[in-house]
Order: sequence, then C-alpha cells, then structure tokens
Amino acid sequence: MGLMSEALTQVLIPVAALVGIGFALFQWFLVSKVKVSSESGLDNGYKDRLIEEDEPEEGIDADEAVAKCADIQNAISEGATSFLFTEYKYLGIFTVVFGFIIFLFLGSVNGFSTQSEPCTYNKGNICKPALANAFFSTIAFLLGALTSVLSGFLGMKIATYANARTTLEARKGVGKAFITAFRSGAVMGFLLAANGLLVLYVSINVFKLYYGDDWEGLYESITGYGLGGSSMALFGRVGGGIYTKAADVGADLVGKVERNIPEDDPRNPAVIADNVGDNVGDIAGMGSDLFGSYAESSCAALFVASISSIGISHDYSAMSYPLIISSMGIVVCLITTLFATDIFEIKDVTEIEPTLKRQLLISTILMTAGIAIVTFSALPSEFTLYDFGIEKVVKNWYLFFCVSIGLWAGLVIGYTTEYYTSNAYSPVQDVADSCRTGAATNVIFGLALGYKSVIIPIFAIAIAIYVSFSLAAMYGIAVAALGMLSTIATGLAIDAYGPISDNAGGIAEMAGMSHKIRERTDALDAAGNTTAAIGKGFAIGSAALVSLALFGAFVSRAGIKVVDVLTPKVFIGLIVGAMLPYWFSAMTMKSVGSAALKMVEEVRRQFNNIPGLMEGTAKPDYATCVKISTDASLKEMIPPGALVMLTPLIAGTLFGVETLAGVLAGSLVSGVQVAISASNTGGAWDNAKKYIEAGATEHARMLGPKGSDAHKAAVIGDTIGDPLKDTSGPSLNILIKLMAVESLVFAPFFAAHGGLLFKLL
Amino acid sequence: MGLMSEALTQVLIPVAALVGIGFALFQWFLVSKVKVSSESGLDNGYKDRLIEEDEPEEGIDADEAVAKCADIQNAISEGATSFLFTEYKYLGIFTVVFGFIIFLFLGSVNGFSTQSEPCTYNKGNICKPALANAFFSTIAFLLGALTSVLSGFLGMKIATYANARTTLEARKGVGKAFITAFRSGAVMGFLLAANGLLVLYVSINVFKLYYGDDWEGLYESITGYGLGGSSMALFGRVGGGIYTKAADVGADLVGKVERNIPEDDPRNPAVIADNVGDNVGDIAGMGSDLFGSYAESSCAALFVASISSIGISHDYSAMSYPLIISSMGIVVCLITTLFATDIFEIKDVTEIEPTLKRQLLISTILMTAGIAIVTFSALPSEFTLYDFGIEKVVKNWYLFFCVSIGLWAGLVIGYTTEYYTSNAYSPVQDVADSCRTGAATNVIFGLALGYKSVIIPIFAIAIAIYVSFSLAAMYGIAVAALGMLSTIATGLAIDAYGPISDNAGGIAEMAGMSHKIRERTDALDAAGNTTAAIGKGFAIGSAALVSLALFGAFVSRAGIKVVDVLTPKVFIGLIVGAMLPYWFSAMTMKSVGSAALKMVEEVRRQFNNIPGLMEGTAKPDYATCVKISTDASLKEMIPPGALVMLTPLIAGTLFGVETLAGVLAGSLVSGVQVAISASNTGGAWDNAKKYIEAGATEHARMLGPKGSDAHKAAVIGDTIGDPLKDTSGPSLNILIKLMAVESLVFAPFFAAHGGLLFKLL
Repeated sequence: MGLMSEALTQVLIPVAALVGIGFALFQWFLVSKVKVSSESGLDNGYKDRLIEEDEPEEGIDADEAVAKCADIQNAISEGATSFLFTEYKYLGIFTVVFGFIIFLFLGSVNGFSTQSEPCTYNKGNICKPALANAFFSTIAFLLGALTSVLSGFLGMKIATYANARTTLEARKGVGKAFITAFRSGAVMGFLLAANGLLVLYVSINVFKLYYGDDWEGLYESITGYGLGGSSMALFGRVGGGIYTKAADVGADLVGKVERNIPEDDPRNPAVIADNVGDNVGDIAGMGSDLFGSYAESSCAALFVASISSIGISHDYSAMSYPLIISSMGIVVCLITTLFATDIFEIKDVTEIEPTLKRQLLISTILMTAGIAIVTFSALPSEFTLYDFGIEKVVKNWYLFFCVSIGLWAGLVIGYTTEYYTSNAYSPVQDVADSCRTGAATNVIFGLALGYKSVIIPIFAIAIAIYVSFSLAAMYGIAVAALGMLSTIATGLAIDAYGPISDNAGGIAEMAGMSHKIRERTDALDAAGNTTAAIGKGFAIGSAALVSLALFGAFVSRAGIKVVDVLTPKVFIGLIVGAMLPYWFSAMTMKSVGSAALKMVEEVRRQFNNIPGLMEGTAKPDYATCVKISTDASLKEMIPPGALVMLTPLIAGTLFGVETLAGVLAGSLVSGVQVAISASNTGGAWDNAKKYIEAGATEHARMLGPKGSDAHKAAVIGDTIGDPLKDTSGPSLNILIKLMAVESLVFAPFFAAHGGLLFKLL
Repeated sequence: MGLMSEALTQVLIPVAALVGIGFALFQWFLVSKVKVSSESGLDNGYKDRLIEEDEPEEGIDADEAVAKCADIQNAISEGATSFLFTEYKYLGIFTVVFGFIIFLFLGSVNGFSTQSEPCTYNKGNICKPALANAFFSTIAFLLGALTSVLSGFLGMKIATYANARTTLEARKGVGKAFITAFRSGAVMGFLLAANGLLVLYVSINVFKLYYGDDWEGLYESITGYGLGGSSMALFGRVGGGIYTKAADVGADLVGKVERNIPEDDPRNPAVIADNVGDNVGDIAGMGSDLFGSYAESSCAALFVASISSIGISHDYSAMSYPLIISSMGIVVCLITTLFATDIFEIKDVTEIEPTLKRQLLISTILMTAGIAIVTFSALPSEFTLYDFGIEKVVKNWYLFFCVSIGLWAGLVIGYTTEYYTSNAYSPVQDVADSCRTGAATNVIFGLALGYKSVIIPIFAIAIAIYVSFSLAAMYGIAVAALGMLSTIATGLAIDAYGPISDNAGGIAEMAGMSHKIRERTDALDAAGNTTAAIGKGFAIGSAALVSLALFGAFVSRAGIKVVDVLTPKVFIGLIVGAMLPYWFSAMTMKSVGSAALKMVEEVRRQFNNIPGLMEGTAKPDYATCVKISTDASLKEMIPPGALVMLTPLIAGTLFGVETLAGVLAGSLVSGVQVAISASNTGGAWDNAKKYIEAGATEHARMLGPKGSDAHKAAVIGDTIGDPLKDTSGPSLNILIKLMAVESLVFAPFFAAHGGLLFKLL
C-alpha cells in the first residue's frame, strides 16, 4: 500500500476539482469586469476605464464602438448557440441510438442473462452479470457524451463572452487585451479539466454502490465514459470544422481575392458565419476533443489497473492514481496561470509568444515535481501487471518515469510545432519566401514543411512509448498519455486564447475601430495561430499515446496474446487501417471544398445583386451564409462519422479481434503522421501570410505589402491550409482514439461473437 | 515432381528471353523506318511517305521541319545521355562502396571463415561458408546494378530515338503517330523484361557451378541482384525526378504563368532541360524501378522456395517457377502487343485510351490461361513450405490462385487509377470545375481526390494479400507480386508511350509545326498522362506485394517467429517506419522546390537580359538550365538516398531484427498510401488542366479557354502536382521495396550481430 489512505484520496480528488471550478469562476468574474452593453455603456466602471485610456479613439465615438461591439458579439453568440443546439439535436438522436446498440451488443454477450458470473481476471471470485456491464457501460457512455457536449458548449459561451471584451481592452494596450483573452481561455481550460475529473469521480463512486468489490466490471463499464466523450468530439470536430472552414474559405475567396476588401470586413456576407465558425469549430470542437482524450486516457489507465494486482487487492488510492495525477495537474496549472496573468505583465507584442511558450515550460517543470509527489504517495512500492498473459512486476518509481516522459514528450512536440509554424523561425520564412515565384512553389514548400515537421514528434512519441511500454506495459502508456494531458488546463487556456483573439480582431474590424486596435489584435492572433498549432500537436501526440493504451486495453480485454504482423488476418487489418485516415480526409476535405463553393456563389450573388453593398450603404444577408454553413456541416459530418463509428463494429463482427487489432495499429501509425503534417502545413501557410502582411523584417517587406503577387500566393496557401489544419488534421486524432475506445467497449462482444466471416469460410 | 523436365526448363527460359529480345529489335526496326535526318531528309522512303500525307503542312517547308526535328532530337538525346553518364559516375562510386559494405558485413557473419558450415534449413547437410555468400551476394548486387542501369539507359535511348519520329508521323494522322510511340514503348518493355530474365537465369546457372547442391546459399546470394537493381532505381527515380520536375516547374512558372508563352516554346530557356528530364526521369527512372520490382519479386520467391521442400528436394523446374512465369509473360505480352499494332488500327483520338486500356485487359486474360499452364506443368501436385517455423503443405492449384489474384489486383488498380486520373470521368472533371473559384479550391479538391483514390487499390491489395498469404504464406505473396508484374512488358510499353508522346509534342512546338500536329500529339499526351498514372499504380501495387514478400523472406532468414505489435521494440519500429515516407517526401519535395526556384531565376534572368529572346530573334542559353537541373539532381538525390540506404543498416545494427521488422511493416503500410495519393493527385491535376485546354465539352469550354482564370488556377494545380506525381510519389515505392530487400540481404549479419544498443542497455 502507498502512503495515502483511501479517505484522503476520497477527499483530495473532489477538492481539487472544486478548486479548479472555483478558479475558473474567479477568472470569469475578472473578465466580466470589462463591460459590454448594447445600451449606452454608461455604467461607472466602464466610464472609469475609458478615462484611463491613454490615447482616445479617433473618428469614432467610444460609446458607439462599445454598442457596436456588443451587437456583433450578440450576433456571433446567438449564431453559435443556435448552431450548437441544432447540432446537439442530431447528436441526441445518435447518442440514444448508439447507446441502445451498446446495450444490445454487450447485453448479448451472455444472452442477456441476469446471473452473476465467475470473474475473468480475479480468479475464483464472482462478478456481476454481463447485462449489468451493458447497462452501466451505456450509462457511462451517456454521461461521457453529456459532459463532452457541456464542455464544448461552455467553452463556446465563454469565448463569445470574451471576444468583444478583448477588442475593447485592446484600446488600452496589448497587455490588457492579452490578459482578457488568456483569462477567458483559462476559464475554459479549468472548467473542462475540473468538470471531466469530477463527473468521472462521481460516476465511479456511484457505480461502486452497485458493483461493490467487482472492480473488473466497474472499470470495464467506466470505459463507456471515454467512448461517449470521444464520439461527441468526433462530430463536434468534423461538424464544427466543416462549418468554420466553409465560411472562412468562402469569405476569403470572394472578399480578399476577388473584391479586395479586408478580412472580417462587415460588407462580406460570410463574415458572421466565419466568426461563429471559430467558436463552434476551434473552441467547442477542441474542448470536446481534449476532454475526450482526457477521459479516454483515464479510462484506459483505470481499466488496465483494475486487472492488475492493484485492482485485485482493492487498493483504492493506487487505483485512483490516474485521477490523482489529474487533480495535481489542476493545482499546477492554477499556479502556472498566475505567472501569465499576475506575476509577469506583457507590455509589447513581441512578448506574447514567449509568454505563452513559458506557460508550457513552467507547467511542465512544476508538474514533474507534482508527479513525483503523487507517485510516491499513492502507489505501493511495487505491484504486478497482467498484460497479454505475462506477469510484470512494476516498481512505483517506474511510473514516475512513465508519466514524466509523456509530459516532457508533450513539451517537445509543442516546441517543435512552434518551430515549424511560427513565423519567427526559418521554416515558415522559407515558405513565405517561396511565394516570390507564386502559389505553386508556396504549396510545394508548405507540403514539404508539413512532412518534415513529423520527424521530431514521431521520435518523441516513439521514445515515450518505448520507455513507458518497457517499464510498465500498457499501464505505462496510459499514464504517459495522462502525463501529457496533465497540464490540459494550461494547454486549453493557451489554445482557446487563439480563436478568442481571432474573433476580437474580427469584431474590431466590423465595429470600424482604428487600425491601431486591429494591429494589436492581429499580433494576438498571430501568436494564437502558433498556439493553436501547439494545441493540435498536443492533441495529436496525446491521441497517439491514448489510442495505443486503449489498443492495449482492448487486446487484454479481448484475450489476444499476440498481434502478429506475420499473419494474413492482422496484416490486412494493418494496411486497411493505414488507409482509413486517407479515406476520412478525402471526405472532410471534399466536404469543406463543396460547402465553400456554395458559399462563394452565395457571397458573389449578394455582392452582385444587393445594390450598395460594396459601398457599405446596404447590409448583407448574413443569415443565408450562416444557413449554408449549418446545412453543409450537419449533412457532411454524417459520412465521416459513420466511417469511424462503423469500422470497428464491422471489422470486429465480421473479421474478428485480430483483424481489428491490425486496423487499430495501422490507423494509429498512419493517422498520426497525416494529422501532424496537415496541422502544421496549414499553420505554416497561415503564418507565412501573416509574416508578409505584418512586414516586420526587411525580407517580409520585400515580399509584401498586402495585395502584392507574393501576398496573393500566400493567401492561396492559407486558404488551402484551412481545411487541412482545422477540419481534416484535428479530426484524425479523434479517429484513432475513437476507434480504439469503441473496440475496447465492444471487446466482450467481439471476443464472444466476433469474426463471423472467417468462421463461415 | 511436375510435368516439366529440368532440361525443358533449361531450354524454355532462355528461349523466351531471346524471343522477347528479338521481338523488341523487330519493333525497333519498324520504328527506324521513319527517317529523321538533319541533312535534307531526301531519301526515298521518306519522300514516299511525305507524298502519302493527306494535308500538307502550311507555312513550313517539309524538309526544314524534318531537319529541325532532327536537331531537337539530337539536343535532347545528347542532353539525356550526358546527364545519365554523369549520374552513372556517382552511382558507380556508390556501387563500389556499397558492394564493399555488403562484402564486409556478410563476410563478418562467421568472422571471414573459409570453412563450410552446417546448413540452416536443409538439416544435416553441409553448406558453403558465409564468406562465399558474401562474395556472391556482392557479385549479384553488381550484376543487378548493371542490369538496372542498362535498362534505364536503353529505355532512354529508345525514347529519344522515337520522339521526333512520332512527331513526324503525326503529320500523317494520329493512328500512325500512336503506333510509332507505342512500338517504341514496346521496344523498351520487351528489352527490359527479357534482359532482366536472361541475366537472372544466367547468373543462377553460373553461381550454381560453385554452389552445386547448396541451394540455400545460392538463392540467398542471388537476392543481391534485387538489391542492386533497386538501389540504382532509387537514385534513378529520385535524381531523374528532381531533374525533370525542376526543369518542368521552372519552365512553366516563367513561361506559361509570367510570359504567357505556350508550353515547350523554343524561346523558353528551360525547354530543352524539360524534355531531357522526361527521358531521364519518367523513362530511365521508371525502367529501373520496374526492373527492380521484377528482380526483387523473383528473388523473394526464389529465396522462399529454396528453403521449402522444393529447394530441399532439388526440383529444378519447380524451383524455376518464378522464372517460367516471367517467360510466359513475355510470350503473352508479345501476342497482346499485336492487338494494338496490327490487329486493330486507331483512326481517331478518342480510340487511344480505350486501346491502351484494352491492352491491359487482353494481357490479363491471356496471362491467366498462361499461369494455369505454367503452374500445372512446372509444380509438383503438392509441396511443403517452412514459414516462420511452421510447416505448410501447399497444393499446386493454390499457386494458380496466388499468381492470378496478383495479376487481377493489378488490373483493378490500373483501372481505378484510370478512373481517378482520366478526364473522361467525373473525379477529374470535378477538380476542373473547382478551378472556377480559383487555385485554392482546385488544390483542396485535388488532394481530396488523391486521398479517395487510395481506397479501392488498398482493398485490392489487401484481398490479394489475404488470399495468397492464406494459401501459400510468403511464397504466395511473392508469386502474387510476380503475377502483377508478369505483364510488365505491356505495362512498360503503355507507360513509356506517355513521355515519348509528351516529347513528340514538345518537338512539334519547337520545330514550329502546325497546330493540327500539336493537337494530335496533345491527344496522345493526355492519354499518356493517364497511362503514366496507371503505370505508377502498377509500380506501387507490385511494390507493396514485393516488399511484403521480401519482408517475409527477411523475417524467415533472420529467424524471427513472430512480429508482435504488442512489444515496444516492434511498435516503435512500426510508428517510425510509418514516418519515413514523410521524411523522404519532405526531402524530395523541397529539393524540387529549391531547384525550381533557381531555374525560375535563371529563366527570368535570360528573358530580361537577352535582347530579342521574346521576339524569337535570339536563341536562349539552354545549357545553363540543363546545368542547373543536373547539379540540383545530383546533389539533392544524396540525402533521400542515404535515408533509405542507411535506415535498415542503422535499425538492424543498433536495434535488432524485431525493430527493423517493425520499420519495414510501418513504412510499407504508410508509404503505399502516400505514394498512391501523390501520384493520382498529380495525374488528376495535369489532366484537369488538359481538360480545360482541350475544351471538348460544353463544361470544359465554360471553364476555358487557355489563359482564363480557371485555366490559370488549373496550371497552378498542375505545377504542384509535378513533384508529387513524378518525384515523391513514384520514389516511395522504391523506398519500401529497397529497405526490405536490403534487410533481406543483410539479414545474416543482423541475426548474428544486430541489436547492439539493446544489448548494451
């Protein structure tokens, strides 16, 4: 037994979760002190602040600007809320149907018998019937789905609450604007991390009332939580990704390329849809995605632990090790956040990126100490894992290395991503330089950059896998993934910061605020592009580890001893699995392309048919563009979603667990490459364009200014990168995780009834 | 024993090879009847032909045109010859050094002992010393390298001999031009197939003089032949690919985009380099590549057979089954060729593509019968395979299915590729349509098309693998690959036809021939783009099977029983292996991009600084552009070449055979996807552009004509596709094959001394 008593564990976890929620609410309170009101904005707090302003706005009445910002914010918030509610209706139907499938499939494992059965791992004991596991897996699935949806929705609400406030604060300087955007990101990060932990903790304790000492069944059922979280994330990412990029590409192609009006110009009919998209895609989608990763890695670790000596000896504190790591993560991230918001202050745009990067470094260093504390308190000095039929004795300090290497691999991936996507370094500058000879060379260089950016992250992941796998088999991999995600609150804060800044810039433009404000929000946004890429890097890296852990858990649960590439069943799974990310990307890319074509036609139609639109005397019809994005995303998210959800069911039922294991391994090793290269290529193109626009160096000025041939080539690259970095790329990490967790949940069914086709032949 | 006696086998194989060579020479003779002379072209044969011409050339003197064509042909031929000789100097150095490495590594297996040893598989017998295997492997490597280089060189010579002849024949109609181009392709196809077979046959018989009854050692040494062939192919593909695409991209970016002059305009300084590139890249590179695949699949099959009951019982005819299949293939292809050149006649441009497609179908149907004959004649009714330690009894009719399924999978891949890259079908037309909204949507749709085009080929490969693997383990896979390659002579004929037609069009443009001629050669060329894509599809599909077979042979030779994904050693190999195609593509794409940038600058410089160049009164400096391409390709082929050649050595020596097995499996399942999608995306963009240019349908005319915005967007897509389809994509199939065959050759060393790093830890 470790040092921590069960009672202490039972107190610490919910307390950490509540501290996280409290901190999030406090940050929200601080953000809410910036007043945005569509009446006259005349309350005293705001007036005081206006007086502080060093340089008053020129040519625009301050109150009018506030009112305009408030109007735009309302429009964006309402658009996003209305889209999400429509999306949730579809997801609700899916959840009910799929919940029913889970219950049916798992219930059928023992013919819906209500009799207790001998345990699978804990030999000699009696466990609850398969029907109970079917029921509780379904409940866990519904809880996971609900929490995921809630995470995404709350994130969106906060982001749309913060965007106009960031714009208004930008009038007082870049530091104030940064803090507002960053605090809002932190609200989302902490709410999500704490919420995910709390729901999981409560569920386990409630399920335990029924399961009692049957921890096998308890933690097997809990894996449904991960499946629920991730399946919502899939639709959120894909649907949101199609929504936002259809609008973005459509708006850019007509506005920037054909009509030569700036980004986010209020005359552009697709501009509201574009801004709504940032919130439903990048914010709500990312929130659901990372919540899914978190839930899955926790479930994978819990499941593997439950069939180890920890589970068999009912050591509650050791069993809760994954949750205690997450609890510690919340505390560490809380301290880390203070470094950005209170301890240091940003005074210049050049300090933004270093500050955000420093957040990653600080949280990683602090967390390493945190891991040591948790590991030596919660875990017994050694315990035994049963993996693929082999006993493996593990010492507690092994686990320290497993979690830490995941954490540090995340940092390496984050920093590599930054190197390849920030325009402060040569890779992006080379891509910008290649715009001299036009869009074709820009695309060639951008693709090459994306491919190259895969190398270091893959080596980092490989080393993390090798170390944690060697030390503690699949449990090691699962806690390495948790390690990478332990600083999720900070990761999400700097990630959500990006779209908030992007929206803030859009609102500044639409509200007709001065160029100075726009320049400040642009600087925030450029850093946001890089942090968004870093966030995606984390999401992909952790997804690789999580899905490997889930894969291991699935293999254990399905009773497979080896997954031998030298058997035809496994090999065809491997090669078909490696193809799935391409199939999936083909669908999502084409969806964005088709929806963007429709958007372009609508925007062109409005510019041609609404008199006075270009002159700014008539208002465009924003609603039609919103409708195009909404309809496209809801319709087009179904085929890729079906591909991901049905593949494990079909492969497992028809071809059996070996082929399915091959499919999972193939999609994992192939998907991670496609995802990283797509995200980084897109991020690099975006920042190459921003590099030319900003004109901060002589080289950049030689390529610019806006409207030059090189800039036009850069805009084409940026547009191509949109679906790569915001639709296809980030959806792929859900693909690899989701197929793995789904296989794990359905493993009892596949083990009992799978492989029909081969049985028939 | 089968029905065929050893004596009959010993006669039939060389006879088939000689028939193939004779047929190739006969086709050459037929092509040579079209006279091209830089003097006055006044010989009678030519005069007669001129009189046949239905519509005489306008505005250009016929003799002058012939003389011009001859001059241009000479320039291209000399450029290509001089480049290849320079390239071969580098390759010569590499070959000597690497031959030395092979000798050293393999010789060291038993400490350079000259003592005979007990056999590994043929228990109780005595085999030749490892030192002898080292020596003969090195010799086989050198022979393979030489044959590969010869194949590429001969192909180039034929192609540059045929291009101007095709141009001149185009004056008499599209049918005549087609036959000239196709016959020339056949010369290359038959020479290469027959030559490869003959050298392999002779080598085996010469080696046998030393080895006698030690077939284990004999066929182990012979695998060096595959390594030699493929390593030359790698440099040929990469070097040639960089050469041709640097010139092509550079020429297009300035000529077509900036200066608005037609493709292949003689005023463009890069035009000669571009045409030279087609011959050194597409022709010589492709020739070496397919020769490599052929040599490797033969070697893999021979090696696996040598350690089966066939090898142990010394059944020569059954042992030679792979060679007899290839012999039958030559005969079948000979008959197939007659259908295109003599039995049917092409009268209209619309018949070109169907005729080429029919070639594939005819050869596949005939070959299926041929396989049946060979299988039941050469093989005993059953024999035993020893694969990964398991005995497997195989009946001869199993092998019929293995070879046939490979053959038919090739046809499916070929037809799928055609569907996705020909502008006769909706996928390419959709891509063309997306040009309405600019280059960005064109690129998005093109990438999506490439991803989608992977699905059916992967299922075809997976089914072929499952069936042949289940029936006859790795021997089944190897002969399935041979089945796909058995119609290589026809495949190469229709493949080489493409660049010849492309060059013919270039020569027509440069010689200032009328638009009518250019339209005919363009029609030939458009079909050539599709057949080139089909050829690449075959190359990739066969590469997947070949490398799996080599992988299996390697695993057998290295004494591994399972390659278990659930071990950290294998898994990290798998994920890093899956990353290698990206690393490799990053290098090759960037190389083309950088070389193209230099080319653009030189072409711009010439247009700006040479007075009278645009007006056509001054000649451009072609030589400098040729030099840029030459220098870039020679310098830039080294890093990707080193990556491929060193990876197996490093992985095997430091991490051992399990990790290396993971690397091979990972690079195979990932590389095949990248290769197919890259080739098809590029082919689709090229033909989308040609679709708009040709304006054959109302839809196409709505998008066109040349110079319209949609056409400009299509040109950008085409340019991006160039390195994808002609450099990165096709090089990747060499990457996966070459790493596998290298691992196989070095397997005795890795098995004895590999895994140093893990041994140290």
